[in-house]
Amino acid sequence: MKTLNMYLGGDQMFRPEIKIMDCSIRDGGLINQWNFSDEFVRATYKGLCDSGVDYMEIGYKASKDQFDPKQFGKWRFCDDDDIRRIIDGIEPLTKLSCMVDIGRVEEKDIVPQTQSPFSMIRVACYIKEVNKAIELCNMIQDKGYETTVNIMAVSTNLEREIDEALDDLSRTSVPIVYVVDSFGAMYSEDVSFLVKKYQNALPGKTIGIHTHNNRQLAFSNTIQAIIDGANMVDGSVYGIGRGPGNCCVELLLGFLQNPKYKMRPILELIQNYYLPLSKEIEWGYIIPYMITGVRNEHPRVAIKFRDSEERDDYVKFYDKLTTPEPEIDCSK
Amino acid sequence: MKTLNMYLGGDQMFRPEIKIMDCSIRDGGLINQWNFSDEFVRATYKGLCDSGVDYMEIGYKASKDQFDPKQFGKWRFCDDDDIRRIIDGIEPLTKLSCMVDIGRVEEKDIVPQTQSPFSMIRVACYIKEVNKAIELCNMIQDKGYETTVNIMAVSTNLEREIDEALDDLSRTSVPIVYVVDSFGAMYSEDVSFLVKKYQNALPGKTIGIHTHNNRQLAFSNTIQAIIDGANMVDGSVYGIGRGPGNCCVELLLGFLQNPKYKMRPILELIQNYYLPLSKEIEWGYIIPYMITGVRNEHPRVAIKFRDSEERDDYVKFYDKLTTPEPEIDCSK
Repeated sequence: MKTLNMYLGGDQMFRPEIKIMDCSIRDGGLINQWNFSDEFVRATYKGLCDSGVDYMEIGYKASKDQFDPKQFGKWRFCDDDDIRRIIDGIEPLTKLSCMVDIGRVEEKDIVPQTQSPFSMIRVACYIKEVNKAIELCNMIQDKGYETTVNIMAVSTNLEREIDEALDDLSRTSVPIVYVVDSFGAMYSEDVSFLVKKYQNALPGKTIGIHTHNNRQLAFSNTIQAIIDGANMVDGSVYGIGRGPGNCCVELLLGFLQNPKYKMRPILELIQNYYLPLSKEIEWGYIIPYMITGVRNEHPRVAIKFRDSEERDDYVKFYDKLTTPEPEIDCSK
Repeated sequence: MKTLNMYLGGDQMFRPEIKIMDCSIRDGGLINQWNFSDEFVRATYKGLCDSGVDYMEIGYKASKDQFDPKQFGKWRFCDDDDIRRIIDGIEPLTKLSCMVDIGRVEEKDIVPQTQSPFSMIRVACYIKEVNKAIELCNMIQDKGYETTVNIMAVSTNLEREIDEALDDLSRTSVPIVYVVDSFGAMYSEDVSFLVKKYQNALPGKTIGIHTHNNRQLAFSNTIQAIIDGANMVDGSVYGIGRGPGNCCVELLLGFLQNPKYKMRPILELIQNYYLPLSKEIEWGYIIPYMITGVRNEHPRVAIKFRDSEERDDYVKFYDKLTTPEPEIDCSK
């Protein structure tokens, strides 16, 4: 029987170019306002280093003029000193990343890379902001960091908009551009279409993939992106992430077959930290998020519903979203 | 952007030949020894009828000489009278099916179809028993039922064995043959390979697909089978089924786009019955089943482990399965 290995490399049983980016704390923080304890974050860093995961995204850099530190945990800001304390004494085998949003960070928040524990700063943007993202990336690169542009919610964009954004990106030195299925709305065919489009438009650049698990397709869509050539793949421990969460990093380790990756440290992290946390805050396959995924909608309406007393009244949620025709085709 | 619709049919937005088989009670019964209340089973039947699902597999037929009715619920036996009571008064829009295992049912347990509430009886077998399955199917067909052969655990068979079994099946009047990923070990490529092989070997027969969700691939593997031509697809409400469970029927309804299918009655079933049940008995994405899936092993060792006091000691389970080399590649 053929195996997926044939897609992964030539002579080898794996494709060494593929790098894993773990987003557990950054995307998981969207659930709990980044209120992870130092112990939790340190254990995650240690586990990822031991497992051979290439990058850990430990949170966002954001301006304290715009976000009140009383309302958000440390990993909303990622002060370099907080990061140094967390990683102190652990062999730094996993590179550190943080994310920035357009307009929510200032240049003064980003010191030269040689003075920072971070190797990479990723820029998340909507497609209409792609030129602002390029400008921010240029500044980040000038300071010595690796960088990426993650175009969010691309499942809602017209193809013309995507083509224009990719054309702009093709003229830059941004090395990595991500396909992001923010709404968990894509089927493998959509992923395939976009990864190929990004590759054709961006010769010489690396394509990344970030998926959401609304319909239990995060892992399979990531596999599809890998088959089509994506070499930077996002995951999170036990799938933690807002709403349905992300692609499980432990599933990626099982798939990629690169002997540098070890699953055992991730299993240890899950049993000691992520399984207990999953009893306190929720992520995973939850029906309202499945419904927003099917409908290609932002999960915010589902998040709000899950915070209300009628959180498990799925029919009410469905009716709400499908008004004025409550009983229309389930394909809508 | 292209859509998956192109795979589903010609002029229509959907492929009308595709039928859904719901296995909630039959496969879910493997968790609780088929101890579902009459109310639960009746609500499931009503919900499936309302949602337009084509078949409901309500349990197994089995000899009471071999299984003690004190130890198993009614749906281990599916006495016709029990079934009649359950469906009484509900418009019978969904056909009923039951499953039989080789050697666990006797001819006297199966009355002529005209005297039975069942339309279909499916035969599950391992590949070495395929000739016994054919014999049983012949008897079932002679009594007037629709029938299928479901070859289990095919991910562990040599290609030669599969070819021989398919060759034998090709000479029969068995109308439907299933690809079954019993161990949740297949990637989409494996599914594709097998569905195409079955189709080539079995001209004129319908190919079915039954998946397990060990690695969150049940839905995506079912989609792949549909793309490759499978027209009989198994699912279950909220994914209920032994261990990791099955492909969620609500996800199938969202995908198939056939206007005869309605998602709303399934959501109602989930919130009123399956969500509460999921707090009492477990199924879903659970690490020991993920590990048996990666390793292409029967889930029994994971089931036993989950019944023990060390149920959440995932590292211990991993070490147990990977002895004598606890820290070997996670790809193993």
